[in-house]
Amino acid sequence: MTDRIRNAALAARTCSADEAAAFINPGDTVAMSGFTGAGYPKAVPAALAARMEAAHAANEAFRVRVLTGASTAPELDGALAKVKGMELRLPYQSDPTVRERINAGELEYIDIHLSHVAQYAWFGYFGPIDVALVEVSAIREDGLLVPSSSVGNNKTWLDLADKVILEVNHWQPESLEGMHDIYYGTALPPNRRPIPLTRPDDRIGETTLRVDPAKVVAVVETDAPDRNSPFAAPDADSQAIAGHLLDFLRREIARGRLTERLLPLQSGVGNIANAVLAGLGAGGFRDLTAYTEVIQDGMLQLLRDGVLRMASATSFSLSPDGIAEFNRHVDFYRERIVLRPQEISNHPELIRRLGCIAMNGMIEADLYGNVNSTHIAGSRIMNGIGGSGDFARNGYLSVFMSPSSAKNGNVSTIVPMASHVDHTEHDAMVLVTEQGLADLRGLSPKQRARRIIDSCAHPDFRPMLEDYFERACRDSFGRHTPHLLGEALSWHQRFIETGSMKR
Amino acid sequence: MTDRIRNAALAARTCSADEAAAFINPGDTVAMSGFTGAGYPKAVPAALAARMEAAHAANEAFRVRVLTGASTAPELDGALAKVKGMELRLPYQSDPTVRERINAGELEYIDIHLSHVAQYAWFGYFGPIDVALVEVSAIREDGLLVPSSSVGNNKTWLDLADKVILEVNHWQPESLEGMHDIYYGTALPPNRRPIPLTRPDDRIGETTLRVDPAKVVAVVETDAPDRNSPFAAPDADSQAIAGHLLDFLRREIARGRLTERLLPLQSGVGNIANAVLAGLGAGGFRDLTAYTEVIQDGMLQLLRDGVLRMASATSFSLSPDGIAEFNRHVDFYRERIVLRPQEISNHPELIRRLGCIAMNGMIEADLYGNVNSTHIAGSRIMNGIGGSGDFARNGYLSVFMSPSSAKNGNVSTIVPMASHVDHTEHDAMVLVTEQGLADLRGLSPKQRARRIIDSCAHPDFRPMLEDYFERACRDSFGRHTPHLLGEALSWHQRFIETGSMKR
Repeated sequence: MTDRIRNAALAARTCSADEAAAFINPGDTVAMSGFTGAGYPKAVPAALAARMEAAHAANEAFRVRVLTGASTAPELDGALAKVKGMELRLPYQSDPTVRERINAGELEYIDIHLSHVAQYAWFGYFGPIDVALVEVSAIREDGLLVPSSSVGNNKTWLDLADKVILEVNHWQPESLEGMHDIYYGTALPPNRRPIPLTRPDDRIGETTLRVDPAKVVAVVETDAPDRNSPFAAPDADSQAIAGHLLDFLRREIARGRLTERLLPLQSGVGNIANAVLAGLGAGGFRDLTAYTEVIQDGMLQLLRDGVLRMASATSFSLSPDGIAEFNRHVDFYRERIVLRPQEISNHPELIRRLGCIAMNGMIEADLYGNVNSTHIAGSRIMNGIGGSGDFARNGYLSVFMSPSSAKNGNVSTIVPMASHVDHTEHDAMVLVTEQGLADLRGLSPKQRARRIIDSCAHPDFRPMLEDYFERACRDSFGRHTPHLLGEALSWHQRFIETGSMKR
Repeated sequence: MTDRIRNAALAARTCSADEAAAFINPGDTVAMSGFTGAGYPKAVPAALAARMEAAHAANEAFRVRVLTGASTAPELDGALAKVKGMELRLPYQSDPTVRERINAGELEYIDIHLSHVAQYAWFGYFGPIDVALVEVSAIREDGLLVPSSSVGNNKTWLDLADKVILEVNHWQPESLEGMHDIYYGTALPPNRRPIPLTRPDDRIGETTLRVDPAKVVAVVETDAPDRNSPFAAPDADSQAIAGHLLDFLRREIARGRLTERLLPLQSGVGNIANAVLAGLGAGGFRDLTAYTEVIQDGMLQLLRDGVLRMASATSFSLSPDGIAEFNRHVDFYRERIVLRPQEISNHPELIRRLGCIAMNGMIEADLYGNVNSTHIAGSRIMNGIGGSGDFARNGYLSVFMSPSSAKNGNVSTIVPMASHVDHTEHDAMVLVTEQGLADLRGLSPKQRARRIIDSCAHPDFRPMLEDYFERACRDSFGRHTPHLLGEALSWHQRFIETGSMKR
């Protein structure tokens, strides 16, 4: 037993990563921890990749189906993809090698709403879960598990898997204990009950994960950092986007639709999200709450400053500096941060009840407000839909943000027709680019088109969009959602052929 | 006072339809009752249309914005559309004249998830509601309103409108009293609470609608039937589709994923839905429940036979024969039918909790499982998304059904790329045509494509689909969702140009 493995029965299962990986067989479905580069297993995936490589060298097939919470890191997705060890991956990824394999047609990928994953596993839609491979920060005397820096689907994986492999990561702060809220009240229909959460800070569950010790076949000790996610200072476009959004929120307050406390914020990750959060602080907002998926460095400062009163999420994705800051003021943060299973952080019931303000990035949007969050030119996957659909469909506001052009100005974010639709015209309320903000609420398709062109399109593409829209209004088969099908996707085709959407 | 208007203060407001229509001004937002041809106002819309026609003849503008529950009937949508009296219509319509005006570009139409309409009105997204025009079946002594054959958004309209016009329809069975369950527990964020419904038959509200009598400017008596919806015997395609779906449900039971009681059924309206319901009865199912939008004739027989134990809906859309049957056995039916506001019948929280089996029609689906429920060739609106998105996103199963071809075999229901997307690849689990059933759960896009082509495509189009898919897998920019953008929509373009998708 060690300070991190305080249960004798489970301590007796301690072994090397190689020994643990031997419990995973070709064809297995392996459900792993990990969400946005936090809390993923650090050692066993590499050992598994080595086994696969040896098998492949001996002309033996060895691939597994990999389920996670969301994106992981090179040590997991990268390692398994490099040895072509995954036949299936779900529900969200952001690894360059995984992406390359998927888009080469070599790796089957299923893109699923993050709130749906756990219940689909329970419903049996992914078949049996052979192995759960879950990082924790400690094993308590009573055998309960102190979760790591993300919760993701770990409750479900531990409940459903035939075999369990635990990685106990000494690098994770011991002080994580007490921050989590693992809800054990879910059930299958027809036995489901209301989820008793009415405020972002409500605690409705337990601080630890349960596991049947009889299922635990291996415990591996590690001491390795989460994926390094350094904080990037917002660029000019991100600051302009944040500025438009903050002006909009101020107007909503002035109209009496929001109070100064706003409503619980959901925010994607990255440069624009950071700019928005920083802008809220600079704009004098105080006592806000977050009901979101990921807590990043920027949110710690907002908590310290009182801009955020508390934050609920499923993943704690910090840089080394962020971890140091967290450890310096751990008692302060532990009272203000709750980490939940992703089926709770992203639950439609709760997002609608709380009335979240959903703020997510997009790849492109079309004239009518259909949003593409996942594909380049309709066929190449980037990462996945993540939780954007959970929040956009059920939130009080659904905002999609992006610079108005990409690829050195060769690609327009606003296109005649989205090449792939992840959020339909029925679900997108507000679009924002550095050019401006289009409030689409209460508008018909043609009214939306005019507003999107005027407010969001890049000036280089605005005349082309106006030209398309005018001709479509004149010549379209139907004039509810005017389109010229012969050229609706021609901008994307031109991009494929020439590297630019410009004529 | 009459037997239907038993409150003296409101009886004093009784007037003619013409007098009532005079309370509606040009530019008003008028929120009306009505859902699937049931419970819509029968007299005032025609009087309003006459006023509009007179104004237009005098070169005066007179148009209003019309909000409803869902589709109404010629007396409302038809009458106002004929005189070009609507500048905006939402959230669902099925009237030929309205559809013509929308697709001519003369009438702005906003297609919204039915569960979103009430809350958007409360959020202020549609601006102020000037007038509520609501049919009821009676006004009680205490001033409370006995709802009519549909509830729709009536609670919200009565609460929010500045002025209220009531139509009291003597044709509606008096026995409707007691069937409704109007939930008054909704609130705006951040004050929302869990909705305490855990079974389709739970009653959580009141049997009557409240109205502030000071807002009631007119009460009009009518005696007119709801839109006649005669029951059509299922055709061969519908029976084949039902057969495939019933086989699938039987297999799910055999695999232990469903019990013989299934889960609460949501079913669209029409021929296929009727065939599925009849098939459940013929297949020996008993004690099922429905948590759906509309109760049609077919369901009465299922209730009588014990196939359905009870049914919850927001609209009671019966033929005259159905009404006669209902009246013959009113005490039996009243114990087994609950009519709710559509924000409750379609609430994401409740649909997910109950685990509904969602069964809806579609116009087309593409190789990857994206479903178009609303548009012909990407631009012409048919009706609208209705509640299909509420149920498909949140149900235990989401099934989309259609014959595999239309227009005398010239149009394929399965297309390379959907020309409009209402339900994304993330939300469609099962597709069914008379050719067969494609279970898409747990499949990647390319796996889905093979299964859809094999199981659902019409033989006339199967080779064309196979050809497209093979070439796309070879030549696509990315191979996650293979597409050839230059021809992805060419089938629709060919249909526009030649009347057929066939080469």
